[in-house]
Amino acid sequence: MTSVDAAGAGPIRLTGDARAAYRPASSARITAGFWRHWQQVNASTTTPGAWEQLHRAGNVHDLGLAAGTTSGQYRNDHPFMDTDVYKWLEAVSWLTQAGMADDELGDRAAAVVALLGAAQEDDGYLNSYFQVAQPGARFADLRWGHELYSAGHLIQAAVARFRATGNADLLRIAVGMADLIDRSFGTEPGRIDLVDGHPGIETALVELYRTTGDHRYLGRAEYFLDRRGHGLLGPARRPPDTFGPQYWQDHVPFRDAGTVQGHAVRQLYLMAGAADIYLETGDERLLAACERLWEDMAATKTYLTGGVGSHHLDEAFGDPYELPAERAYCETCAAIASIQLGWRLFLATGRARYAELVERTLYNGFLGGVSLGGDTFSYVNPLQVRDGHHPTGGDMDPARVRWFRCACCPPNMMRLFASLQHYAVASDSSAVAVTQYISGRYRAETAEGELELAVRSALPWHGETEIRIEQAPSAPVALRLRVPAWSDGMAVGVNGVPVPACPQDGWIVIAAAWAAGDSVALSFGTPVRLVRADPRVDAARDAVALERGPLVFCFESADLPVGHRLDDLVLAQDAPALVRQVAGLPGMTGIQVTGRSRPGRRPLWWPYGPIPPQEEPDPAGATVTATAIPYFARGNRQPGAMRVWLPSS
Amino acid sequence: MTSVDAAGAGPIRLTGDARAAYRPASSARITAGFWRHWQQVNASTTTPGAWEQLHRAGNVHDLGLAAGTTSGQYRNDHPFMDTDVYKWLEAVSWLTQAGMADDELGDRAAAVVALLGAAQEDDGYLNSYFQVAQPGARFADLRWGHELYSAGHLIQAAVARFRATGNADLLRIAVGMADLIDRSFGTEPGRIDLVDGHPGIETALVELYRTTGDHRYLGRAEYFLDRRGHGLLGPARRPPDTFGPQYWQDHVPFRDAGTVQGHAVRQLYLMAGAADIYLETGDERLLAACERLWEDMAATKTYLTGGVGSHHLDEAFGDPYELPAERAYCETCAAIASIQLGWRLFLATGRARYAELVERTLYNGFLGGVSLGGDTFSYVNPLQVRDGHHPTGGDMDPARVRWFRCACCPPNMMRLFASLQHYAVASDSSAVAVTQYISGRYRAETAEGELELAVRSALPWHGETEIRIEQAPSAPVALRLRVPAWSDGMAVGVNGVPVPACPQDGWIVIAAAWAAGDSVALSFGTPVRLVRADPRVDAARDAVALERGPLVFCFESADLPVGHRLDDLVLAQDAPALVRQVAGLPGMTGIQVTGRSRPGRRPLWWPYGPIPPQEEPDPAGATVTATAIPYFARGNRQPGAMRVWLPSS
Repeated sequence: MTSVDAAGAGPIRLTGDARAAYRPASSARITAGFWRHWQQVNASTTTPGAWEQLHRAGNVHDLGLAAGTTSGQYRNDHPFMDTDVYKWLEAVSWLTQAGMADDELGDRAAAVVALLGAAQEDDGYLNSYFQVAQPGARFADLRWGHELYSAGHLIQAAVARFRATGNADLLRIAVGMADLIDRSFGTEPGRIDLVDGHPGIETALVELYRTTGDHRYLGRAEYFLDRRGHGLLGPARRPPDTFGPQYWQDHVPFRDAGTVQGHAVRQLYLMAGAADIYLETGDERLLAACERLWEDMAATKTYLTGGVGSHHLDEAFGDPYELPAERAYCETCAAIASIQLGWRLFLATGRARYAELVERTLYNGFLGGVSLGGDTFSYVNPLQVRDGHHPTGGDMDPARVRWFRCACCPPNMMRLFASLQHYAVASDSSAVAVTQYISGRYRAETAEGELELAVRSALPWHGETEIRIEQAPSAPVALRLRVPAWSDGMAVGVNGVPVPACPQDGWIVIAAAWAAGDSVALSFGTPVRLVRADPRVDAARDAVALERGPLVFCFESADLPVGHRLDDLVLAQDAPALVRQVAGLPGMTGIQVTGRSRPGRRPLWWPYGPIPPQEEPDPAGATVTATAIPYFARGNRQPGAMRVWLPSS
Repeated sequence: MTSVDAAGAGPIRLTGDARAAYRPASSARITAGFWRHWQQVNASTTTPGAWEQLHRAGNVHDLGLAAGTTSGQYRNDHPFMDTDVYKWLEAVSWLTQAGMADDELGDRAAAVVALLGAAQEDDGYLNSYFQVAQPGARFADLRWGHELYSAGHLIQAAVARFRATGNADLLRIAVGMADLIDRSFGTEPGRIDLVDGHPGIETALVELYRTTGDHRYLGRAEYFLDRRGHGLLGPARRPPDTFGPQYWQDHVPFRDAGTVQGHAVRQLYLMAGAADIYLETGDERLLAACERLWEDMAATKTYLTGGVGSHHLDEAFGDPYELPAERAYCETCAAIASIQLGWRLFLATGRARYAELVERTLYNGFLGGVSLGGDTFSYVNPLQVRDGHHPTGGDMDPARVRWFRCACCPPNMMRLFASLQHYAVASDSSAVAVTQYISGRYRAETAEGELELAVRSALPWHGETEIRIEQAPSAPVALRLRVPAWSDGMAVGVNGVPVPACPQDGWIVIAAAWAAGDSVALSFGTPVRLVRADPRVDAARDAVALERGPLVFCFESADLPVGHRLDDLVLAQDAPALVRQVAGLPGMTGIQVTGRSRPGRRPLWWPYGPIPPQEEPDPAGATVTATAIPYFARGNRQPGAMRVWLPSS
């Protein structure tokens, strides 16, 4: 196996031929601030804790059965439980690259890789479920079997491990499985001409092509994309219902799709795969479809938090503007998928809007999926939990739990936390673009040479941000700095001298012959913003939400005066004030508002009634002070009501 | 078998010992008007059409396999498909009682009964799924097997056939199965101490007790009720989630329950069973729990249409006021269950509110489950379908279809249509109560003798109603006439002479020594009503709905001027006007309103934005005229958007 890969690269390492507007920084490391804290939580608690959960839930045991090193019954119902191990391995790899993995994590990863090596069959096949629980059924249930999806996560883990450590042990295993898939699938006689019920193999095969230089993988990724939408899988049946072929993205050829539809994670993983194929092939129809679908999603099917997916039943996108706050599904994995897609579309096009939604999703829809301690998780991330909520139990209740029966989200979070540095800075031949102000060190290539930046930002709490040049080529290079849509006024200084800031298309551009030690100071305005939704979003009608900087805020029962219910709170739109102390949430900045507590005017037994005459004003209700907290910090105190959208008078 | 039953009785025939405020009319027949039309549609199209569907879907085939009269594979996935045949048999029975079943229906019913007799095993067991598809697993999967639920429908069909025709053939079969269940279940050693995952056996066993006089069935019904809430079934698992024990009503002992929870049909069938047990035992704690739960449901978990159930995933009640219009589940069967429960609670207590909700549910949440032609059905009955709705396919899309994979709803509608006459009139020792103004002939017993009434009502289109005395005892008897909450002003005349109408607790009472030919004329006011919801119902915030008489109205795209989208419509609250002609809906009265078409103020790519300054008024939008149609008539023209709640300015 010839490797053409480069050390230091992140989840996406474009080939030299890639049709990209930007290329990711060649090396990146988060050094301080908000996201450094979260990476530390991930390194010290979340990822190590997952090791125990993967044992407790049986994932490692089941792999041991496949390897012949363990005895007993196969423990998991789902055929995709290996992927949680793969995602964990990928997370450990990125932690290792960042210098944040201790020896114990490293040893455990090596042990799992050895287990996978022992489990792999001679022809390359590796999937504990179909080796142990359903032997003989290999590639026989593409609809629900998740075999290619699982292989995709194996490949991504292997690529990460190789890039992080130079160790090709897992890569050899992944290549074995990828080669088996490549020679088993296709339109040629004797091959299986089917796609997987869950996309995910597409991005992985493109990344394996990028890592190995072997064009077979790119071609096979194109095959898996192109064979969708021809009804090969039929409708997705689950009693008592039929979800239809859109559930597994088999309803329309990708290039012809006009709206995001079906299972949200499946849709977004497929879009990311198509974006990757575009990046390496230049197939403009793929990019056009990706951009069209993304626009449809952003404009009509995305929650304020960046979360997506309105349906619990089929974990699917809903209709345009079908965004009920309480029944928001907003699976954490869908937020992750949206971030991964947005980064690819940014690299492909250089458009700021993609980075904009990545930022929103990162701070809200994604980060809200884990507790502040990093040890409990939410699978669904609704924008409202009512007073009197009856927990339904199971994965789909908003309450945070240590692990899920279908535990896709937690290890998915771990790998994104651990690789987050790679989603911030990119470059083209003449400029370096800072898309996320994540405190860190970044090296990026231009035609003139390498620029090294040190970013320090007080975000999300304050807008003060400094970009220091650590190393620069002698020729001038432009700095392209994204101006977030949430920024209200911005001051820019270069080496202490104010410079005019005229954002264009979401960027300010400062071109200079930079020298080490030069400094660009940015000060983004971060006032509290009251926002409202398109009137077609019924759940948010005549309601407002609070935002500040990249953060969406929410209200929780815990921050209301005793005796008041959150569902009775109406916002009075006088000036909100920042508060530096929120009870039970140390270090969190909240937003204090004045509201009125206006109990529902409920008839004796029926909640609907005539409109009162105009002369009869609504009862004013008691004036109360309530503090909104960042959405990501919700659910970290006693159980209670929560809401993002607050009715306004 | 000794029968103590009476001919002419409907689905509920109380025993002499029953602890009831009212007893159903001893005979009842719908003779004219709105519901006569629907009964005719049911008799001529819906029920005969179901015969074909039950063959096409394999239900009859599968019973034939159990009977040994057919060969081949068992065709259905679900273990409860026999119940659709039972419900159809029950519907045919009530049609026969009403003189609306032709010979062909009668012959088919007799053939099915013969098939059931041949399929029944020597010990009484009868369930094609566990006889053919899963032999040897009898009573082994109480969680999902639906065996007792299925037996419940068998018993109800048998009781109906016996009451309608005097033919005990099916009753003997049902008694065989009931006796087997009775001797198989219980706390005694060697018996199965479990309850069914789906309630339904409870009401059936009580009715079998009423029919046979055998107290064992009443006792067994009590046993099945009392053993719930002790965790015998464990949580209800369905990958990837766990619904919790509330899904099958095993989360709390019934007497202790404080809120309606879990699967809506299961909850309501269980409540109806508890109400039946109360009626025959006088166990006050059961009635108290039923009333408490009903109050909770009506006040916080019922849609304007009377529909219930907010969750698609687990077909469950949501949290209090969690009533999103677009994700309303409102299964047709849940509306039916609510009507059956409401009638029992009315009989138990005499409270008008139960009849009130029965009426609302009947005209809206129930009737909306079938097309105007009676040949297509909706399983879910949301209060909103958006512009740009993407059909998801399957049972849970709002589009009407001919049959469902899980076809519980259509035959459930058939049996309620066919027995509807029994839900209108009741009596106690001194009074006859008219709870629903359904044109028909009713005979009801009082201590003074029998009163026979002929009701003629123009409802739901007009409020004019006449109650003519056809036969009366010589002693005075009171007429108790329900005054619907929707009635705005009411004129009452007796034999042409106006009498003062002073409703009390929802009734007017007219006591007289009636004579044949006497006439009571009622004129209910039926103005168009603009109603709004408790502010906690977020989906309806600052929106209004239109009602008139017992009907809830909705808007459909079809009634908007070309080029306007329903999702952009805002109601201008000037006087709505009745229109007698609605395009494509002959005979339907609509309500014309003036609105404004105000397109969403959408930024380029993101549907959320800052609140505009106070000085900047909303764009007024174009003035449009739109016609609302009765909710039950929705979905009978071309596919399009629909909504009950319209934003108001």
